[in-house]
Amino acid sequence: MESDPRQAAAVYRQAQGWKILAEFADLLRLPNVTRQTDDLEVNAAELVRRFEDRGASMEIARLDGAAPVVIGELRTEAPTAVVGVYVHYDGQPVDPDEWTFPPFSATLTTSAGQPVPYPGAGDPIDPEWRIHARGASDDKTPFAALTSALDALAEAGIARTVDLVFLFEGEEESGSPSLDRYLTELAPRLRADVWLLCDGPVHQSRAPQVAFGVRGYCGFDLTFYGPEHEVHSGHYGNWVPNPAFELAVFLAGCKDESGRVTIEGFYDDTAPITDEDRRAIEALPDVEASLMEEIGFAGPEVEGAGYAELLMIPSFNVRGLRAAGVGVEARNVVPSHATTSVDIRLAAGDDPEAMLSRVRAHIEKQGYHLVDDDPGPVDRRTHRRLARLVPTAGYRAARIPMDSPLARVLLDVCSRASHGDVVALPTFGGSIPLYLFEDILGAPVAILPIANHDNNQHAADENIRIANLWYGVDLWSVLLTTDFSSVRDDPVSG
Amino acid sequence: MESDPRQAAAVYRQAQGWKILAEFADLLRLPNVTRQTDDLEVNAAELVRRFEDRGASMEIARLDGAAPVVIGELRTEAPTAVVGVYVHYDGQPVDPDEWTFPPFSATLTTSAGQPVPYPGAGDPIDPEWRIHARGASDDKTPFAALTSALDALAEAGIARTVDLVFLFEGEEESGSPSLDRYLTELAPRLRADVWLLCDGPVHQSRAPQVAFGVRGYCGFDLTFYGPEHEVHSGHYGNWVPNPAFELAVFLAGCKDESGRVTIEGFYDDTAPITDEDRRAIEALPDVEASLMEEIGFAGPEVEGAGYAELLMIPSFNVRGLRAAGVGVEARNVVPSHATTSVDIRLAAGDDPEAMLSRVRAHIEKQGYHLVDDDPGPVDRRTHRRLARLVPTAGYRAARIPMDSPLARVLLDVCSRASHGDVVALPTFGGSIPLYLFEDILGAPVAILPIANHDNNQHAADENIRIANLWYGVDLWSVLLTTDFSSVRDDPVSG
Repeated sequence: MESDPRQAAAVYRQAQGWKILAEFADLLRLPNVTRQTDDLEVNAAELVRRFEDRGASMEIARLDGAAPVVIGELRTEAPTAVVGVYVHYDGQPVDPDEWTFPPFSATLTTSAGQPVPYPGAGDPIDPEWRIHARGASDDKTPFAALTSALDALAEAGIARTVDLVFLFEGEEESGSPSLDRYLTELAPRLRADVWLLCDGPVHQSRAPQVAFGVRGYCGFDLTFYGPEHEVHSGHYGNWVPNPAFELAVFLAGCKDESGRVTIEGFYDDTAPITDEDRRAIEALPDVEASLMEEIGFAGPEVEGAGYAELLMIPSFNVRGLRAAGVGVEARNVVPSHATTSVDIRLAAGDDPEAMLSRVRAHIEKQGYHLVDDDPGPVDRRTHRRLARLVPTAGYRAARIPMDSPLARVLLDVCSRASHGDVVALPTFGGSIPLYLFEDILGAPVAILPIANHDNNQHAADENIRIANLWYGVDLWSVLLTTDFSSVRDDPVSG
Repeated sequence: MESDPRQAAAVYRQAQGWKILAEFADLLRLPNVTRQTDDLEVNAAELVRRFEDRGASMEIARLDGAAPVVIGELRTEAPTAVVGVYVHYDGQPVDPDEWTFPPFSATLTTSAGQPVPYPGAGDPIDPEWRIHARGASDDKTPFAALTSALDALAEAGIARTVDLVFLFEGEEESGSPSLDRYLTELAPRLRADVWLLCDGPVHQSRAPQVAFGVRGYCGFDLTFYGPEHEVHSGHYGNWVPNPAFELAVFLAGCKDESGRVTIEGFYDDTAPITDEDRRAIEALPDVEASLMEEIGFAGPEVEGAGYAELLMIPSFNVRGLRAAGVGVEARNVVPSHATTSVDIRLAAGDDPEAMLSRVRAHIEKQGYHLVDDDPGPVDRRTHRRLARLVPTAGYRAARIPMDSPLARVLLDVCSRASHGDVVALPTFGGSIPLYLFEDILGAPVAILPIANHDNNQHAADENIRIANLWYGVDLWSVLLTTDFSSVRDDPVSG
């Protein structure tokens, strides 16, 4: 029998890869749009079943008004540490019209995007194939990787060296509004020496990656109000205030020509970029040119802005606009209201509440009266400038030292799993509520991504590249058999 | 028998008002959204039937790629002039979700908005009731007013004093792209001493109104491009260009704080406001305060801007915005594209082509490469600033002298029809392709509105107030029996 875990994983994939894909596809066919509670319950039950099949004790925990979380544990004989595994099973909303294949069809395609049938036993599997589905990469891949690694080790008779504790969340794509309550409530059952956040993509160079931080998050929907109902633009245009134009003026005033956000105090709390950070940034593979080619644009938002440096400061991103109609839906009216949705990614040091207060102050300084609900008739007739701010639940960024024992163990695990160079990323651009694990559970946290970077995460045609799924199986096979005692011995920084 | 036409109309309305409403409701139940050719054909056929029933010779004329027009004539024994009657039978698009009652249900309501059954013979009819439907006021009311006036005069045995020539258009709400071709083609059959454009609302004070001009129109949809597909805002926000933000910056830069459009040359061709215009404007009833109360806003777009003066200069109105999602549809992405729809109302002197050229130059001056179609992969990777301009077919404004014989006759007709003061409006804020009648048919044109101003024209819950429909019946009964020979004798200015 094979005793090298990475090799054991490879042998297992070779023989049973078709079964891994089939089982993963079944999971991806379960709709998992965030806030769709009935659908999420089906996902949670299926996860319980899958991990119980591998010998874990699993349970669904529920809090009022929140999607359920799945928790559980899988113990071993002589653990070197307890490793917590966080994955989220909800996905972003979908607009099926924008998808090439239905978002919950789990369509398997060639690298050129041509659908192919799922393989049967013995059929070859091209690692450049992809499975298309909401959740394929964000964030159901770790489930498939972990269960397959457990199967591979069992098949090869290799013993695990770590105890596992699981936390699978169902509200991450809604900003994790209940995660703090769940962690607080369940803390005694979530004790671990380290938590691994299994989310996000590997490096854009396709090299494996460990990330030592994530950005925080906050955001808002902001609606501007014009006439109570749409009015005829010929009769009333340029006399009745136009909320779509006010929205444009507001947004345009939020940044200067250098791309710097002009909201007062926006960068005040951001941790300075250290020399260590700069060295790490400089060591990153240079992917800007290939990213531009791949994503399809000719130059960055602001000339000379460096991609990796931007992740170290808070961002201000317009994620949507809506007012009356455009194209064939356009009507000759002054719109009655206009809404923009903005997300702000927080860097280390930034506080979401403070950030939203600055946004609020910025709006009010421009003479807007802010209402908490749709304005009533009196509001409209009293305040010339009227807007509604709906903040999105947010959280702080978090980072751990890049030279800690945890960092060293994980870089080594990835390196052994991939036989190659591993990228050490000071922080992810994406947001995960990692700070809560530090605050509530008192454990260090790192991020261990599996998905390909070009996975269309959050957008139409989300997909996972089979080679990345295979990397995930190998990664977990190695990790589950690695000596984590150095992490247990260093409880402060991990 | 009654020999006073206004009185004859009143008698007829009193006895047959229920039938007028029932017949009008049947017309309003025919969906008439512009560009929906099959639906428009049904409307055209129905109009032929209705006017043939009143003794007119009618015909449907068609040109390739255009909605049909309905033309016809109704002659009399000793005409004092030939009066051309223009009405359009298409309506603006509808978003049924925004309507209180379905847009083609022709729901009759009290002034408080409560549905009431249609009256039967002898039932009382409250003139403050309204019929709700797309097209109820813009622009099917003249059909009901005209056929009912013909019926009223026939019933009273009163002879008409004018010959009528009809032109009913089906593309007005799409910007009348084929009207010039139709007028040119059909000119020999559309000879008239004067054309009356029957569209638009009466004055906001509810006084009857004659308008001596209309504004012209042009517009555009402008789409800004970011990444080829939406990308994750955490990983790529503020590095990958955001088209929604670019759109905001562009729009905000189109006007200064005084509301003046900053597009170079925007006001260059606009006819100066004359002393005569100023006198007419000053004589208008002051309705600003009551309009603000009614429309529901606290102050004009720009402090101190006078409503009537604004109609004398070109406007720039944002009629819609669209990029990715907002609210529950919001996704954490950099949108791939963002579109705004803008309409520009042209004042006397302005040329639509010249105006669109200025817009184009304004965009290009900001470094945008303009494409005519969705950009291809090479465009995206070559041009950092990329946008697509889709111009909307437009036309010039038009006005006639306010002291011409035609003006005097029409003010007198309205005054006799309403027993009251009539508002003489130098120009409407709305747009109608009136200039074509002058250019191609060589006839003076004036606008004779019927609908209430608070009709939600172009928006949800469009409606007609019954009192305004009754005014229309009276107006046409008087007009059809008026001596128009002074107009025929003054072929230059009408």
